[in-house]
Amino acid sequence: MATSKDAVIPQADRMFEGGTQKLDVWSIFTPANVPPDAINLGQGFMNWAPAEWIRKLAHDAMDNDVMANHYAHPRGRPRLLKAISKHYSPSFENLAKEGRELTSEEIVVTAGANCGTYAALLAHLQPGDEVICIEPFFDQYFASIVFNGGKPVFVPLHPPKEGSGNSTGSEWTIDFDEYRAAFTPKTKAVIINTPHNPVGKVFSRDELLKFAEICIEKDVLVIADEVYDCMVYDDKEHVRIGGLPGMWERTLTVGSAGKSFAATGWRVGWLIGPPALTAATLAAHSRIVFCTSAPMQEAVAIGLEGAESHKFFETQLAEYVERRDVLLSYFDQLGLPYTRPDGSYFVLVDMSKVQVPEDFEVPATCQGRGKDFKLCWWLAQEIKVVGIPPSEFYSKDHEHIGERFARFAFCKDTELLHRAGERLLRLKDYIH
Amino acid sequence: MATSKDAVIPQADRMFEGGTQKLDVWSIFTPANVPPDAINLGQGFMNWAPAEWIRKLAHDAMDNDVMANHYAHPRGRPRLLKAISKHYSPSFENLAKEGRELTSEEIVVTAGANCGTYAALLAHLQPGDEVICIEPFFDQYFASIVFNGGKPVFVPLHPPKEGSGNSTGSEWTIDFDEYRAAFTPKTKAVIINTPHNPVGKVFSRDELLKFAEICIEKDVLVIADEVYDCMVYDDKEHVRIGGLPGMWERTLTVGSAGKSFAATGWRVGWLIGPPALTAATLAAHSRIVFCTSAPMQEAVAIGLEGAESHKFFETQLAEYVERRDVLLSYFDQLGLPYTRPDGSYFVLVDMSKVQVPEDFEVPATCQGRGKDFKLCWWLAQEIKVVGIPPSEFYSKDHEHIGERFARFAFCKDTELLHRAGERLLRLKDYIH
Repeated sequence: MATSKDAVIPQADRMFEGGTQKLDVWSIFTPANVPPDAINLGQGFMNWAPAEWIRKLAHDAMDNDVMANHYAHPRGRPRLLKAISKHYSPSFENLAKEGRELTSEEIVVTAGANCGTYAALLAHLQPGDEVICIEPFFDQYFASIVFNGGKPVFVPLHPPKEGSGNSTGSEWTIDFDEYRAAFTPKTKAVIINTPHNPVGKVFSRDELLKFAEICIEKDVLVIADEVYDCMVYDDKEHVRIGGLPGMWERTLTVGSAGKSFAATGWRVGWLIGPPALTAATLAAHSRIVFCTSAPMQEAVAIGLEGAESHKFFETQLAEYVERRDVLLSYFDQLGLPYTRPDGSYFVLVDMSKVQVPEDFEVPATCQGRGKDFKLCWWLAQEIKVVGIPPSEFYSKDHEHIGERFARFAFCKDTELLHRAGERLLRLKDYIH
Repeated sequence: MATSKDAVIPQADRMFEGGTQKLDVWSIFTPANVPPDAINLGQGFMNWAPAEWIRKLAHDAMDNDVMANHYAHPRGRPRLLKAISKHYSPSFENLAKEGRELTSEEIVVTAGANCGTYAALLAHLQPGDEVICIEPFFDQYFASIVFNGGKPVFVPLHPPKEGSGNSTGSEWTIDFDEYRAAFTPKTKAVIINTPHNPVGKVFSRDELLKFAEICIEKDVLVIADEVYDCMVYDDKEHVRIGGLPGMWERTLTVGSAGKSFAATGWRVGWLIGPPALTAATLAAHSRIVFCTSAPMQEAVAIGLEGAESHKFFETQLAEYVERRDVLLSYFDQLGLPYTRPDGSYFVLVDMSKVQVPEDFEVPATCQGRGKDFKLCWWLAQEIKVVGIPPSEFYSKDHEHIGERFARFAFCKDTELLHRAGERLLRLKDYIH
């Protein structure tokens, strides 16, 4: 009988240890579990609503178009497919060279980037296939791989040396010999996340060319998770690996309306790639959810269509730079070294110098995990600022690499970031 | 390399025959493939928008509550969980007996009923587990089972004898000895769909008690697909199998806002069951899509909260009875026998008497399938009314049972149904 005891998802041992689910980090640090007056820099959602002009037109669409409330074509509503094509095509170097735009057959709208990745893996993995992920990794990759019969293989980003002060994403390095050595005859796919969560690194063209060389040589599918592509700062260049020579035909690029339009709850994402790869993914996605929410697709189409005239992305980018710099200024004052984010809306801070009182007790959910779970729990309870322990984003073997950090989200308005910063300054008493 | 050729979903041979996907019936009869002036009684979506008062308040929620636009709790927004509890609790006989309402731990909000069923199967199936479905079956069950490593096992509803005139759902019968014989030591779950798509049958209390007896004896999980529970006509009683003695602890009941509120594109559904079953399903669902669209959840909560004061469900039910009777009146005129729907918004019509011109040619997508594919394709092209060939809802071995029927949806306003009916009267020329 299907009781909780035997409700075990095949191979997902890590998540269902001893027959009961090991709680994911989001459930541990969910607002219901932390003090109600804590400031949440944990989960990456914004504390503002999506733009008013988008909401207004989206309401009109729901009111004036009956079919904006009913089943969408499983691939996506034509209006959104067209808007994605127009917005994305110029950033794929292969398309620019060919002088063409994305066709509808090269796009699949998905129920969030999350379900897009899940569907791509369902479509393309055979039992036992291996998928190479870079650590730290977005934790949902793990489930998406194992639930679909695959085996995740991890290659770490090597962090800057401890005690070396502030760093940049470029100091988190891939050892490409190590990366190449992770491939086996069973390797079917790799996931490359740029801008990178939680490091904030934007992979350089040189690095991406090295990934490309190996992926072409090993003949694997590449899932390019680029959901933070609207948050690339300063003079950093965001290169789409799917646009590099020889890569289009093997790459599915993942995008997210939630990130791009400050609408994480709308659950609209998309995959971009050649018809051969999107066809199977569409078949999988349409069996999982049938189609993506139609009114939300309409809202996103409206956003993409109007972005240019509203200078939406330029303005948003400038705001994110300001938010980042506000938050970083407090870690500067504390002398806690961080990796300056070149992209995404996360900052990894080295918390090694912070000493949690020895007698502080953590709940069972945080026990038997990296020491960052203890630090972040204490931070939430005592300093009243929520951050996320990044050891969750490592495999068991490598979680020690992440233990000295905490991840803070700066997709919050500057007023809230200042308030969080003021609280964080209390850490001075615990830094020795 | 992941090309379309080897993008084969494990065990889904039926869907990816010879390495290319065999088209599902929805893609064949999609609006893009049928004449633009055809009237679509195929796919079950309404040709009206959800109620204005729901849309209006949903817009307000998106505009006035920032968090209605951001990640919802994976289980669902508390407001919706509360509204589901209030609406559903009275209809579960076990809860009435216990004098209590559903708790939040007994509900999971899902990205449509489709993803709810998918997640439940992901959570509870081990590779090789068998799931018993009743034929004809909603075609998405097949993929949900096989994509999650399970094996579907089919037991047919036996139709009324051919040539016996109009029938009722009670004349489509389960042979319970046959049903019991379908169980093996590998049977993990059964799916029971009531009101039934496409037959329109509402299983009687006696029938459900027989299912219950066998499911308790065989100790299996029951997925009760009751997405048409708002469309039960005349004096028929809709009994929830999950509320029968001994059934609560083994049953997940599936519900759908799309069906209930004429909002098939909103993609909000839910599962109801004991915490032991919902916990694993929640874990699976939160890895597939993370959470369900937050603004759409808000809209549905508004609908459930306001339904009583707007007499929403009573009014809608009366309208569906009228729609059903309008459509049936045309088949009466034609003398084409049908199964009078006691529930759902579909009618199965016996088309045996209709003779498609012998020289009519069907496209490749309809070849090598049941003869109902030819009839429905001809109907769409020549009579300009779209129906769905129900052999799609049978396993290969049993598809002959469904071949003599066509399924028509009456979730369309009476004006459109009359127009479709007038066109269908042209069938007189083809009935001999």
